[in-house]
Amino acid sequence: MAEEVVLFGAWFSPYSQRVRIALKLKGVQYKYVEEDLHNKSPALLEYNPAHKKIPVLVHNGKPIAESQVILEYIDETWHGYPILPKDPYERAIARFWAKYLDEKYNLPLKIKACWGEEKEREKALEEVSEILQFLETELKEKRFFGGETIGMVDIVANVIGLWLGAFEEASGVQLMKREKVPKLCDWIDEFVSSSVTKESLPPRDKLIVYLRNRFGGANVSK
Amino acid sequence: MAEEVVLFGAWFSPYSQRVRIALKLKGVQYKYVEEDLHNKSPALLEYNPAHKKIPVLVHNGKPIAESQVILEYIDETWHGYPILPKDPYERAIARFWAKYLDEKYNLPLKIKACWGEEKEREKALEEVSEILQFLETELKEKRFFGGETIGMVDIVANVIGLWLGAFEEASGVQLMKREKVPKLCDWIDEFVSSSVTKESLPPRDKLIVYLRNRFGGANVSK
Repeated sequence: MAEEVVLFGAWFSPYSQRVRIALKLKGVQYKYVEEDLHNKSPALLEYNPAHKKIPVLVHNGKPIAESQVILEYIDETWHGYPILPKDPYERAIARFWAKYLDEKYNLPLKIKACWGEEKEREKALEEVSEILQFLETELKEKRFFGGETIGMVDIVANVIGLWLGAFEEASGVQLMKREKVPKLCDWIDEFVSSSVTKESLPPRDKLIVYLRNRFGGANVSK
Repeated sequence: MAEEVVLFGAWFSPYSQRVRIALKLKGVQYKYVEEDLHNKSPALLEYNPAHKKIPVLVHNGKPIAESQVILEYIDETWHGYPILPKDPYERAIARFWAKYLDEKYNLPLKIKACWGEEKEREKALEEVSEILQFLETELKEKRFFGGETIGMVDIVANVIGLWLGAFEEASGVQLMKREKVPKLCDWIDEFVSSSVTKESLPPRDKLIVYLRNRFGGANVSK
């Protein structure tokens, strides 16, 4: 039986793009289905009834939801390029930072930091700054979080890699100060220009317009 | 070198107890350090600077934080009893439900459901009911979420296994209706009386007093 891999995603979602990057790293061919999140397909609702969210990867008819769960599945199903390291302790550290990123650097925080009222914005900006500082420390002298190559944390940190700058430009608010997190800034440059991620990330200009329309609303000119 | 395993935890925390259950299933000997969360030890702050939270497992001097990350580490480090299944798809499903539990059935929801103002409480109770219904469906005809034996989802679902009933008793609010989730109720009975979990779970009476004092406050008599 020929293998069938289908990804249900949305072009502007960093969570979908993680799956695209992982499938590209593994060299897996797949069919991509763009979901309209205002009018979700019956297939998506059937595949992910608990969350009703993208991304969903369907492998030979079996659905898997939640981007980090999908990344682990991809790593365990298709061998070759390693997304997680081999050593159990290094794997734990990668999982820790991947979880940290999604828990702490979440969408409500970004919206507050970019478009919140002054006090709320200041508080959110402090939180963002603390998160970036922890990531700077974790990067140490490495090229990628995964060492010499892109791994789990790099893929998950695409929310910083491309989206952070897009949020900055869409809102006019500076979220990251280069002098405070120079290694992380170098990492962003490497990440967005890598041949692997370049094709999997959405066009920056289109993303900025999208973010401004979706979250900026009347506040965008503040 | 003799192996050194230390767990920093708190007796009332379902997250610490997950690690205790996993170490027991694997037959790993360890030293347990009870943390005072009002006066955290310098060791805990050093081992988990990003969250400053228990549980932290320290294995031969190397710290790992976040209960689900620790469970994966334990499963990959000590062989024998399997916490996650072998098949990648089954592993993904277990990870999905473990993540679902921690994301959805979180502490703020429980506090609202038990001690919130009327409208807030009603809404929270509906959410709890939906979560339990999804778990009921996932259990199907299985004895445990892990099949015939306790696995990842069972360990994580200790927040339901012991804590749900304790929250009910501490608040006087019914969170779960037996007729709506009969399989889940059978699972709870099996889970709390299993020889593995019995010794790792805190005494129910003590837990109820603790929850009432910590969260109930003046609202408890409502």
